[in-house]
Amino acid sequence: MLEDLKQQVLEANLELPKYGLVTFTWGNVSGIDRERGLFVIKPSGVPYEDLKADDMVVLDLKGNVVEGDLRPSSDTPTHLVLYQNFKEIGGIVHTHSPWGTSWAQAGRALPAYGTTHADYFYGEIPVTRPMTREEIEGAYELETGNVIVERFADLDPNMVPGVLVHSHAPFVWGKDAHNAVHNAVVLEECAKIAARMQQINPETEPMDQTLLDRHFLRKHGVNAYYGQK
Amino acid sequence: MLEDLKQQVLEANLELPKYGLVTFTWGNVSGIDRERGLFVIKPSGVPYEDLKADDMVVLDLKGNVVEGDLRPSSDTPTHLVLYQNFKEIGGIVHTHSPWGTSWAQAGRALPAYGTTHADYFYGEIPVTRPMTREEIEGAYELETGNVIVERFADLDPNMVPGVLVHSHAPFVWGKDAHNAVHNAVVLEECAKIAARMQQINPETEPMDQTLLDRHFLRKHGVNAYYGQK
Amino acid sequence: MLEDLKQQVLEANLELPKYGLVTFTWGNVSGIDRERGLFVIKPSGVPYEDLKADDMVVLDLKGNVVEGDLRPSSDTPTHLVLYQNFKEIGGIVHTHSPWGTSWAQAGRALPAYGTTHADYFYGEIPVTRPMTREEIEGAYELETGNVIVERFADLDPNMVPGVLVHSHAPFVWGKDAHNAVHNAVVLEECAKIAARMQQINPETEPMDQTLLDRHFLRKHGVNAYYGQK
Amino acid sequence: MLEDLKQQVLEANLELPKYGLVTFTWGNVSGIDRERGLFVIKPSGVPYEDLKADDMVVLDLKGNVVEGDLRPSSDTPTHLVLYQNFKEIGGIVHTHSPWGTSWAQAGRALPAYGTTHADYFYGEIPVTRPMTREEIEGAYELETGNVIVERFADLDPNMVPGVLVHSHAPFVWGKDAHNAVHNAVVLEECAKIAARMQQINPETEPMDQTLLDRHFLRKHGVNAYYGQK
Repeated sequence: MLEDLKQQVLEANLELPKYGLVTFTWGNVSGIDRERGLFVIKPSGVPYEDLKADDMVVLDLKGNVVEGDLRPSSDTPTHLVLYQNFKEIGGIVHTHSPWGTSWAQAGRALPAYGTTHADYFYGEIPVTRPMTREEIEGAYELETGNVIVERFADLDPNMVPGVLVHSHAPFVWGKDAHNAVHNAVVLEECAKIAARMQQINPETEPMDQTLLDRHFLRKHGVNAYYGQK
Repeated sequence: MLEDLKQQVLEANLELPKYGLVTFTWGNVSGIDRERGLFVIKPSGVPYEDLKADDMVVLDLKGNVVEGDLRPSSDTPTHLVLYQNFKEIGGIVHTHSPWGTSWAQAGRALPAYGTTHADYFYGEIPVTRPMTREEIEGAYELETGNVIVERFADLDPNMVPGVLVHSHAPFVWGKDAHNAVHNAVVLEECAKIAARMQQINPETEPMDQTLLDRHFLRKHGVNAYYGQK
Repeated sequence: MLEDLKQQVLEANLELPKYGLVTFTWGNVSGIDRERGLFVIKPSGVPYEDLKADDMVVLDLKGNVVEGDLRPSSDTPTHLVLYQNFKEIGGIVHTHSPWGTSWAQAGRALPAYGTTHADYFYGEIPVTRPMTREEIEGAYELETGNVIVERFADLDPNMVPGVLVHSHAPFVWGKDAHNAVHNAVVLEECAKIAARMQQINPETEPMDQTLLDRHFLRKHGVNAYYGQK
Repeated sequence: MLEDLKQQVLEANLELPKYGLVTFTWGNVSGIDRERGLFVIKPSGVPYEDLKADDMVVLDLKGNVVEGDLRPSSDTPTHLVLYQNFKEIGGIVHTHSPWGTSWAQAGRALPAYGTTHADYFYGEIPVTRPMTREEIEGAYELETGNVIVERFADLDPNMVPGVLVHSHAPFVWGKDAHNAVHNAVVLEECAKIAARMQQINPETEPMDQTLLDRHFLRKHGVNAYYGQK
């Protein structure tokens, strides 16, 4: 079942080492079929070079494994909560990409400092609050999803397709698995540029709001004019 | 028409990923035929691996598309303004190369700190002023060209073949498309070396003017003695 | 003798250039057969591209060469002391991997700042005290082992599989040669992320202890649930 | 003439891009035949991928071209002065390798901070004084050699095989062309590790003298015991 989606999720997972986002197995991508209410995710701890489409695990939106012989990624409950709450997203990626992880460990949101950021994220990429002892000792991965959702109470996940989980690393999403990885590459690039920028000029303020609007809307929405029709 | 120029601009665009200056499609190169008053530019949003010479778009110096089935780069009006105002340049490149972009986002000009810089840029690489709300909301890409030209009111674009656009990224030029990319690689390397140098010794002053003269003139002008005749 | 172990140690040595942990011959890996009380180590100063399984040197736990035509690594006495004192470890690696070496030269332990670290090291990666003149001028490599063992007087080497030797570089270990290299890659990655994090937010505190417990135990011990069974 | 030496110098030049020490043509290697009093150097401005052994230029120790159709490197007079004054060196390399260049532009000597450095350089890698206006406007490349020699008035170039030229970049040497490149790789690695170390702990002092002695003498001189006999 869902052969096309499995293939797409496999390919999106293989983009992680290609773009330098992962060391070893430190990352996972999922994609969802919204009509059928099923999502497909990488199995836990399997090296990327050994992955096959048939290894992908299929789950429903209650978190039940519907198909697959391998255990799903240990981060599956986080993906589940995001799919349940962010109704329009089609793919999710989690990595420990080094620059994004440095910001996450620093406990700092990544402000929009320039047009590279503004082309993809409409404003700062937020950081979650530290988790409580109860959350960590409880259903930890599910609670990780909950603190992300909590952080987006007043944010639109379609306008800001990613988050830094405090003391941990980024979760990023998009309209499908491939687009989620695309956004994860952007987050990593922006995290790198911003960290170096801070060293060059520690007083730098976030970018002008008008410029942020212009660049985001140049690539998104009904008046977008970037790329081919 | 302009088959040689299209091929040259194609090859110059393909140098961007080769030299690590671009992520995804974040860059574009153009080249001009001054006699005919036509320039050739990359189409918008097309991945480098799919680019063909025939995809290149030809425009005149009023900004009209003369040939080409695809939309030209969204940054085409910026290229246009630069060709109109910097009469001797033959090629232009825009990238979000990460070190140059860090300086641009920091809103800081890149001073000439050493001979690597002096071999190619005769003095600091300037940064444009922040754009006004009217400029951003108006003909944004054209106004981007205008603020660059404004910044060069007292500078010679042949001696300083590049600029950092505030909150954005570098624009770099040269005697042809290939040379523009060459200079873009140099800018990125100098931006990297200077950022690290600042961390090693935050008190470093720009280099001695006599040394700057010597190195620039060793490679440029009638008394140049670097390379083969 | 020990053909399988020699092959394994050879392959683990070849992983060092693959993962970017070494320049030239600046690294060595060993592995031990605990039942027979013999360990296998890289010969000194031989380039990785020339290494063969038969070049590996076999020693007993008194430090006598039992087999091999080449001199063992000059760091062999350090490996010997670690095998003698850390009874459960099966492989050791020493490199001058650049980020780990920066921390070692800075004389600073690497605190646990995030889950990437917590997945592999249960708490900070310690730094040894500076060695005395007598230790340096005496049996230097053996004394290097002794200061490591001294530093672990109150630490469990199975929970913290690595150390930074002051003014020098990391030594890392694991259940076998391959696992030791795996942990060395992790140390380098964590050292990189932490150094950049400090620049992003110099005030960052080490991570929450509950989160550290959760991540370490998710991958280690009887209740581990990461990966396939 | 000197076919073996030309081949060796060619190969050493080709190691520069292999080890990431150069961008474009920003580097050159030479090697000397002390018995015949002739040295061989890269021609000026020729891309590495086009270099052939026959392109190498042969000069005597008065600086006369003895063989070769191409212009020698514009830095040839610097090489000449070093061969004239440092009687035992057999090869010289000049690059703008980025980390070494950052220290040179910062005008700071590179202290010996750890064993990676001590294995190859017996103490800090010095920086030359800024050159005078007369030196820069005069026989600039020859005067560059002179300020290096001046800086080594109380230093042994065999113990410290490299220097940072102020506002410029490193010159490094060795017993032959290949060994000079080897030392240039080490300088770049140490410059990188030290810059990051300073950020991790700005208070770090240079390493203990006894440890410096031990490591340098482990690899150099009559009591060396690193590598195979």
